[in-house]
Amino acid sequence: MPRLRVTRRLHFCAAHRLAREDWDAERNERIFGLCASPNWHGHNYELDVTVEGEVDPETGFVLDLKVLHELVETRVIRELDHRNLNLDVPWLKGVNPTTEQLVIAIWERLAPALPEGVRLARLVLWETPRNYVEYTGDVD
Amino acid sequence: MPRLRVTRRLHFCAAHRLAREDWDAERNERIFGLCASPNWHGHNYELDVTVEGEVDPETGFVLDLKVLHELVETRVIRELDHRNLNLDVPWLKGVNPTTEQLVIAIWERLAPALPEGVRLARLVLWETPRNYVEYTGDVD
Amino acid sequence: MPRLRVTRRLHFCAAHRLAREDWDAERNERIFGLCASPNWHGHNYELDVTVEGEVDPETGFVLDLKVLHELVETRVIRELDHRNLNLDVPWLKGVNPTTEQLVIAIWERLAPALPEGVRLARLVLWETPRNYVEYTGDVD
Amino acid sequence: MPRLRVTRRLHFCAAHRLAREDWDAERNERIFGLCASPNWHGHNYELDVTVEGEVDPETGFVLDLKVLHELVETRVIRELDHRNLNLDVPWLKGVNPTTEQLVIAIWERLAPALPEGVRLARLVLWETPRNYVEYTGDVD
Amino acid sequence: MPRLRVTRRLHFCAAHRLAREDWDAERNERIFGLCASPNWHGHNYELDVTVEGEVDPETGFVLDLKVLHELVETRVIRELDHRNLNLDVPWLKGVNPTTEQLVIAIWERLAPALPEGVRLARLVLWETPRNYVEYTGDVD
Amino acid sequence: MPRLRVTRRLHFCAAHRLAREDWDAERNERIFGLCASPNWHGHNYELDVTVEGEVDPETGFVLDLKVLHELVETRVIRELDHRNLNLDVPWLKGVNPTTEQLVIAIWERLAPALPEGVRLARLVLWETPRNYVEYTGDVD
Repeated sequence: MPRLRVTRRLHFCAAHRLAREDWDAERNERIFGLCASPNWHGHNYELDVTVEGEVDPETGFVLDLKVLHELVETRVIRELDHRNLNLDVPWLKGVNPTTEQLVIAIWERLAPALPEGVRLARLVLWETPRNYVEYTGDVD
Repeated sequence: MPRLRVTRRLHFCAAHRLAREDWDAERNERIFGLCASPNWHGHNYELDVTVEGEVDPETGFVLDLKVLHELVETRVIRELDHRNLNLDVPWLKGVNPTTEQLVIAIWERLAPALPEGVRLARLVLWETPRNYVEYTGDVD
Repeated sequence: MPRLRVTRRLHFCAAHRLAREDWDAERNERIFGLCASPNWHGHNYELDVTVEGEVDPETGFVLDLKVLHELVETRVIRELDHRNLNLDVPWLKGVNPTTEQLVIAIWERLAPALPEGVRLARLVLWETPRNYVEYTGDVD
Repeated sequence: MPRLRVTRRLHFCAAHRLAREDWDAERNERIFGLCASPNWHGHNYELDVTVEGEVDPETGFVLDLKVLHELVETRVIRELDHRNLNLDVPWLKGVNPTTEQLVIAIWERLAPALPEGVRLARLVLWETPRNYVEYTGDVD
Repeated sequence: MPRLRVTRRLHFCAAHRLAREDWDAERNERIFGLCASPNWHGHNYELDVTVEGEVDPETGFVLDLKVLHELVETRVIRELDHRNLNLDVPWLKGVNPTTEQLVIAIWERLAPALPEGVRLARLVLWETPRNYVEYTGDVD
Repeated sequence: MPRLRVTRRLHFCAAHRLAREDWDAERNERIFGLCASPNWHGHNYELDVTVEGEVDPETGFVLDLKVLHELVETRVIRELDHRNLNLDVPWLKGVNPTTEQLVIAIWERLAPALPEGVRLARLVLWETPRNYVEYTGDVD
């Protein structure tokens, strides 16, 4: 059976700052610049979730997009939308929320939760319309 | 010689519904939800056609985009644009037109028709601005 | 108090064809071309709903966008999304669903239903990413 | 001489929450919902600044866009980008930063600062890709 | 009968430079900066053409978009696309091709050519995705 | 450590024409059509630069985007923006500036200049919003 990739784009808004708790203000500012601004800033994130699998000969779907949407909505979007990524999200505790670390954490929330027969193939996380991070679960 | 990928995006509008002819209305609606709505609905599809090949040292092209455009226009867009995917397209006869099955059928129309020296590398078919399917011809 | 305009963009997919019931097939095709294609085609419509009003000094809102979203969702989107505009929508009965006639019909559904203190200022209805119709309720 | 409108789009990221300091948490949450989330959230704002004037017969410009860009950059973007709209911006002190109130405050920063011969004609402030506020300086 | 506005977006690529023939190189560069670069630069322009009129009760159209498309294609796009705006276009002879002057010249090409019953209401000309000029034919 | 890809999108405007210096006008026009237009045309190019590497456990970055931005700005954008690709750029001397050849030349400018620990993984160069070329450095 042919294998395809199916992508659904979702959206969330969140506040964050880039800073390590074990560094002082001066060092955080030197490394992270404006992104370390102490009173937070925020973004409209776009998250493209791509799953891969064979086409089900019964339905013609790799995966019903409603199922995928609901899964990402429940496990990721509701947890992050209108939240502070440094303070409000238990599974980001102690993580400096760069786009890179955020996408890895989202991967770990989603990969094990996908229904049988499909696998998480790629996450693309847009922080702004001009920069994004892409993760395929590769570990070196 | 370096190998590159060249992509051209094309557009078509079509009506469809998701339903199997051998299932009754109730089952189609249970599985496909609103997408099984009996009087059809439709989409503005965007189709990104990617070919791969070596750069021709004479022209500096992998493939003249006008040639690619004309090929996709003739073999795909004119057949699908302003049509009903369930009723009007001979090469979709009997296919439940999910985005997945549609992209596979388009692949089969295009892959053998490309000029020598390039190969069809990827098709991306957007059903809405928030979901798309990606096919590279892989068979498991 | 300052007056502003607030816009919310919503989305629906629908099938339609352009044709008058009192014209024969040949005349419909001559006037409407491919858009008269008998088995329907369809679009991803984008609808931008703009309301105008004074800023409420208590909330800082012209209108809570959730209220606007819910109103448009209930009175327009649920009625049109995944439907056939020629067949399925009581309030479009007998209307040849050009973008122009569709936007006027949507205006009539929304204008009287807005909460006190705001007025419907403009509707923009995109049929494709390259053409749209704009209505401000003007009658000559 | 013909009069035209010239628009420049600029970008900033900021954190905010919707809440009145003189309301308690329960009331803020009831009125503002998730937007009152205590640890902030944020957005990628897009700001479209439109000026109107006659075309200068010497240069063919209404206004040199570099001048407009520099003005908005200095008076607005540098003050808001990577900041907290509730805490960090002196000219937003005590303002509940809805998109409406934000666009009015930006208007007051920009309108008096434009060079002679042009006037600020319109501000459009996008909070997300699906909602925006539009202000033309009208006072009822 | 209700009046509406109908917009069609078209596209062209062209080279230009900003410079007055009666100024020397030094003065052109001081006023126009990089845009005066002597060997030209260029843009992908987007042109949004908006016409206004009553809905024709027969067809439900303000104007058949194919008619509008063909008119703009013939009178504007074919003349500008893949051309040099300073050198190749008779009706731009002697014009310093700022976006402002370009949109006025396009207006003069289109306004008198529209079919009876509609009027040219607005032109928007995008030079880049972040700046555009808007003209409604107003003369002060 | 997990490996990720980080992308930054940058923008430049340039003039060019497709033509070989060793072909006569007739042959250039036959092969390259309107793109051989003698007085140049131009584009708004978008360049997506993707680097790949491990996440630095100290910063949470694969690479500080400011570093990447500065590198591409200095080595590519400043050299191409508002320039003529056939005439003004030493490292494009003698190159027929198709999008394919342009992306290869950009690759050669960027790949050796990246900081240790990351590698250039992909360049995507958009010539218009509807066509782009993609290069990953592959040599057949």
